[in-house]
Amino acid sequence: VTDPLGAIPPPVRWDGEALHVLDQRALPERTTYLTCRTTGEVARAIRSLALRGAPIIGVAAAWGLALAAAELGGARAAAALEELERAGADLRAARPTAVNLGWAVDRMLAAARAASGSGGGASSLRRALVDEARRIEREDREACEAMAAAAAELVPDPAEILTHCNTGALCTAGIGTALGVVVGAHRSGKRVHVWVDETRPVLQGARLTAWELRLLGVPMTLIPDAAAASAMAVGRVDLVAVGADRIAANGDVANKVGTYPLAVLARRHGVPFYVVAPTSTVDRSTPTGADIPIEQRPQLEVTAVLGTPVAPEGTPAWNPAFDVTPAELVTAIVTERGVARPPYERSFGVLGGARGAA
Amino acid sequence: VTDPLGAIPPPVRWDGEALHVLDQRALPERTTYLTCRTTGEVARAIRSLALRGAPIIGVAAAWGLALAAAELGGARAAAALEELERAGADLRAARPTAVNLGWAVDRMLAAARAASGSGGGASSLRRALVDEARRIEREDREACEAMAAAAAELVPDPAEILTHCNTGALCTAGIGTALGVVVGAHRSGKRVHVWVDETRPVLQGARLTAWELRLLGVPMTLIPDAAAASAMAVGRVDLVAVGADRIAANGDVANKVGTYPLAVLARRHGVPFYVVAPTSTVDRSTPTGADIPIEQRPQLEVTAVLGTPVAPEGTPAWNPAFDVTPAELVTAIVTERGVARPPYERSFGVLGGARGAA
Repeated sequence: VTDPLGAIPPPVRWDGEALHVLDQRALPERTTYLTCRTTGEVARAIRSLALRGAPIIGVAAAWGLALAAAELGGARAAAALEELERAGADLRAARPTAVNLGWAVDRMLAAARAASGSGGGASSLRRALVDEARRIEREDREACEAMAAAAAELVPDPAEILTHCNTGALCTAGIGTALGVVVGAHRSGKRVHVWVDETRPVLQGARLTAWELRLLGVPMTLIPDAAAASAMAVGRVDLVAVGADRIAANGDVANKVGTYPLAVLARRHGVPFYVVAPTSTVDRSTPTGADIPIEQRPQLEVTAVLGTPVAPEGTPAWNPAFDVTPAELVTAIVTERGVARPPYERSFGVLGGARGAA
Repeated sequence: VTDPLGAIPPPVRWDGEALHVLDQRALPERTTYLTCRTTGEVARAIRSLALRGAPIIGVAAAWGLALAAAELGGARAAAALEELERAGADLRAARPTAVNLGWAVDRMLAAARAASGSGGGASSLRRALVDEARRIEREDREACEAMAAAAAELVPDPAEILTHCNTGALCTAGIGTALGVVVGAHRSGKRVHVWVDETRPVLQGARLTAWELRLLGVPMTLIPDAAAASAMAVGRVDLVAVGADRIAANGDVANKVGTYPLAVLARRHGVPFYVVAPTSTVDRSTPTGADIPIEQRPQLEVTAVLGTPVAPEGTPAWNPAFDVTPAELVTAIVTERGVARPPYERSFGVLGGARGAA
């Protein structure tokens, strides 16, 4: 069960033969699942944003490789590994910024190599990959609970929490990252109210976060992204909590475009700015935020809103999907292993286990 | 002629008997005019955002009172003035933040009192109000040219200019305030490129500013409001230029929601932040930004985009139409009388003529 309260449909569901992917582009209007029977179909679902959010695209990529293993038939070990690596490269290329994608692919390929080395043949390889995908999914769910628990001390009662994009049950295998912290505080009885940035251009806040919070009964108010500053200016924000798509070794954070300005505003207003992400999002092989590739998305996402044109035909648009928040603006990074504080190089070292760690 | 280049349809047009108001809600899809034959119809056009932008709603209010005078028939002088004051109060109440509305009403009522005092009867009163409305409209057009001229020294060549909302020919009787500065620089041969904030929730940037700039041939790129910070972070913004709906005596600026965060970001990135507005926007009877009433607009503007729902039914939304930028973040305020720099109390005094000045 993805959502302990049972209210939110799981973003992915494995039935033993196929991965069913909730098509988040149709939310909140319709709840429909895409059936992915091949790695290519999983990669397509990720690329098209049917499935989005760093942790869950890692989980989906893991299942994508389990599907690749099922397609192998009786291929010899070396050929099978080569095929899996090709499938892994496809998945990795689906979106460039979120590092969880590559992290999950790496784990699956390591599991494949281990199974292949033990000489058990094709069926044991398949079993090993299904097991590893299931493990990645379970660990992600547990990480959400651990992050919510670790963040409890950071959330006062009552708390006005401002968030951006969607970081809830729809983008993880559990209760979410930043939104999981909100849900955890709400479940523990704290009086929480959430300011939900609508998050143009794809409106994940309006369509997904507002929907999740309503299903869970958490009080919230939707705002245009440009009104977040007003909420802070009138003293109605106690903390900002956001997720992350990749965290560099120095603590710089790539996250949905619009995150960086929130961090600048939070600093001006003395509001704590928290990033909530599993350690699989920390990429210690990326030294700083300047080294993180920022995905450019289609102009049409800006010039039209959910298919309705909002600008004259032919208007050029710039659509970076992410921005980079420098570590100096991040009050703390909440991971499943605890709360990291600046300087992050050191605190990531203490937490251990982050990707690319020595 | 509203637009010296003739490309943009005028936002209001007086035909001697009625005021034709360009319905900006239908732009850029359709160019249609509403015919206003009464003060009430003008007030309704302002309230509904058919017409928007501080300077032009002042001009429209002036014509609204000219219409009121035409309705008076042969009323006695005292009764006529009372009727005009009632009409002025209706217009003033149409929107609370833009001070140009009240400023124009005040000027028209003063003209009515003067005409009434000279004892010329109903037809001379009507003529006086039509003349005063025409004067207000002409002065606004001239103010735009003067602001563009005054700002020329502030715009380098080439220049990357970021702007918010719509401050062009559609919201003034001339080439615009902040956008007039852009157009002036472009006309003078400077290589200008404009970053256009789409300006949720009503999308004046996407629908109106992008349209104007394309009609005028000024290079531009549309961005989500949340991506303005990214443009600054990559060093692609040389200056920010915005308009104003009301400027307090101390230089605090109320403008379209989303202006204040741009000012905070501009400061962080060392980018000059310019406000361009006629002195009729300066309200020296409002001491500080904290004294400016901020209009709250319908939640539906946030929960739907141009009629398409973007959030689950029943989602509560907060929709302040404006925010307040403290004077300390404003590099300069460009008026038709010259460029005001901090401290603004003093520089407004030097420029003179601002509303409420001693």
